[in-house]
Amino acid sequence: MNFDHYTGRVNQHLSQYLSNQGSLTEVMRYSVLSGGKRFRPILTYAVAHTFGTDMNTVDASACAVELIHAYSLIHDDLPAMDNDDIRHNQPACHKQFGEAQAILAGDGLQALAFEVLATDEHLSAKVRIALLQALTHAAFDMAEGQSIDLSVVSKSVDISILKNMHKKKTGSLLSCAVKLGALISECNSEDQQILENFSQDIGLAYQIQDDVLDVLTPEDVLGKKQNSDAEKDKPTYPALLGLEASKIEYKSLYISAMNGLDLLSVDATHLKKLTLQLQDRAF
Amino acid sequence: MNFDHYTGRVNQHLSQYLSNQGSLTEVMRYSVLSGGKRFRPILTYAVAHTFGTDMNTVDASACAVELIHAYSLIHDDLPAMDNDDIRHNQPACHKQFGEAQAILAGDGLQALAFEVLATDEHLSAKVRIALLQALTHAAFDMAEGQSIDLSVVSKSVDISILKNMHKKKTGSLLSCAVKLGALISECNSEDQQILENFSQDIGLAYQIQDDVLDVLTPEDVLGKKQNSDAEKDKPTYPALLGLEASKIEYKSLYISAMNGLDLLSVDATHLKKLTLQLQDRAF
Repeated sequence: MNFDHYTGRVNQHLSQYLSNQGSLTEVMRYSVLSGGKRFRPILTYAVAHTFGTDMNTVDASACAVELIHAYSLIHDDLPAMDNDDIRHNQPACHKQFGEAQAILAGDGLQALAFEVLATDEHLSAKVRIALLQALTHAAFDMAEGQSIDLSVVSKSVDISILKNMHKKKTGSLLSCAVKLGALISECNSEDQQILENFSQDIGLAYQIQDDVLDVLTPEDVLGKKQNSDAEKDKPTYPALLGLEASKIEYKSLYISAMNGLDLLSVDATHLKKLTLQLQDRAF
Repeated sequence: MNFDHYTGRVNQHLSQYLSNQGSLTEVMRYSVLSGGKRFRPILTYAVAHTFGTDMNTVDASACAVELIHAYSLIHDDLPAMDNDDIRHNQPACHKQFGEAQAILAGDGLQALAFEVLATDEHLSAKVRIALLQALTHAAFDMAEGQSIDLSVVSKSVDISILKNMHKKKTGSLLSCAVKLGALISECNSEDQQILENFSQDIGLAYQIQDDVLDVLTPEDVLGKKQNSDAEKDKPTYPALLGLEASKIEYKSLYISAMNGLDLLSVDATHLKKLTLQLQDRAF
């Protein structure tokens, strides 16, 4: 089983949402539709599928979470931030359109993400509000996480600071992608808690794995510069724990994530397969 | 009558919302609580007051619209955008904290604005969704307006292009401030339309007046650099129409705005006084 149908589905809806957005359309389309693994929307779809939820009710959330992710990449790549020139094997947004339009495209994408959720007619106002509460909070945490990330450059930090930073910078939006799927499915509070634990495990695992892949993966596969964190003197898991211990750490988190899924009130095969695929990803 | 009690009210709530927001707290407080006329929240409060609406139901909207405005000022001042070093008579956010933290504080404020609305327990989910639809749309238009603004620097444009740009860049959020007050008050569709026309008149009047004040007002009163638009070779109303014709234009828009208010199903004295005070502002 693979999850390409979710990718196709979210891409189609993203393209529709970005088809007629005035003067920012071209810049936003360039950054959003040029690639990306769509891991966050896939998570949202997969969780909703696990509960037998109508996929038409999931599209807006899947798009919204990806739009937030896309805006964060545009802003993170800016010279004042991580100063990365390549993203998805093409010039970063600010290299293609200039810094001003890149900042504004990011700003516009954030607003659009929330508008997409607020205007989705498939869901009740009550569910939409729950989704918006989750996504606005995650988006805020993500910005704060990036702020912490920049503040620790060239500094000696311990693993708890690194973990807190990653929890906000990467984990918050990944957890939210899972939570959106749970909220749309209106699943019971036990299942919500199990999914919350699952999402925190895979959120941290994903980031540690990213740090490992950043060291091991060639640039053309990664779609961005290899070893860029170390060159920027950013603290990473491999730098703090060593490469092998980091691999063990993220693999054990994926195992914990999968074991937790056994407690769900519904069959978790679909989510387990996704978790295995994540663990085996090469970039 | 003055409207200082609204300013005090929104400042108090903004300070509460910004009291415990992690590592971005200091940067956000610096920019949001350092001054500003609070014109947008005052509009929201004044419209709601006109319909006898409980002010406790208005605070979140008043804060949200100001948080969006505050984020836009932080991003607009960036070197890649308008490159302004002074805001509210103090160093602009990026001069005080660096560009990266300024970008992230702006990003965080945008997310927080929507979170404040989504989590406001004073309003039903249905009303909150209506407010979020209005504010997300306005925030998107605002970003697009700034994008158009930057694209017309040093270009010869006609008045219709200038008007469209201002309608999005400044008008959309001002109109939204009025609309939020109307939506919270759940006023009838005729009144909503009258307020829509009113908000469009004052939105454009306010911007033309800003262009005029930018030429006429000393820096210490303006709280930012005088004549900065002309120095940046941005098209302005005084540059296109002349100073006197621009004054006549904005004053006639304020008159039109006030006349329209007579059609409301409720007494409009409060909103008229606010409009007169706006017209007489010195900065």
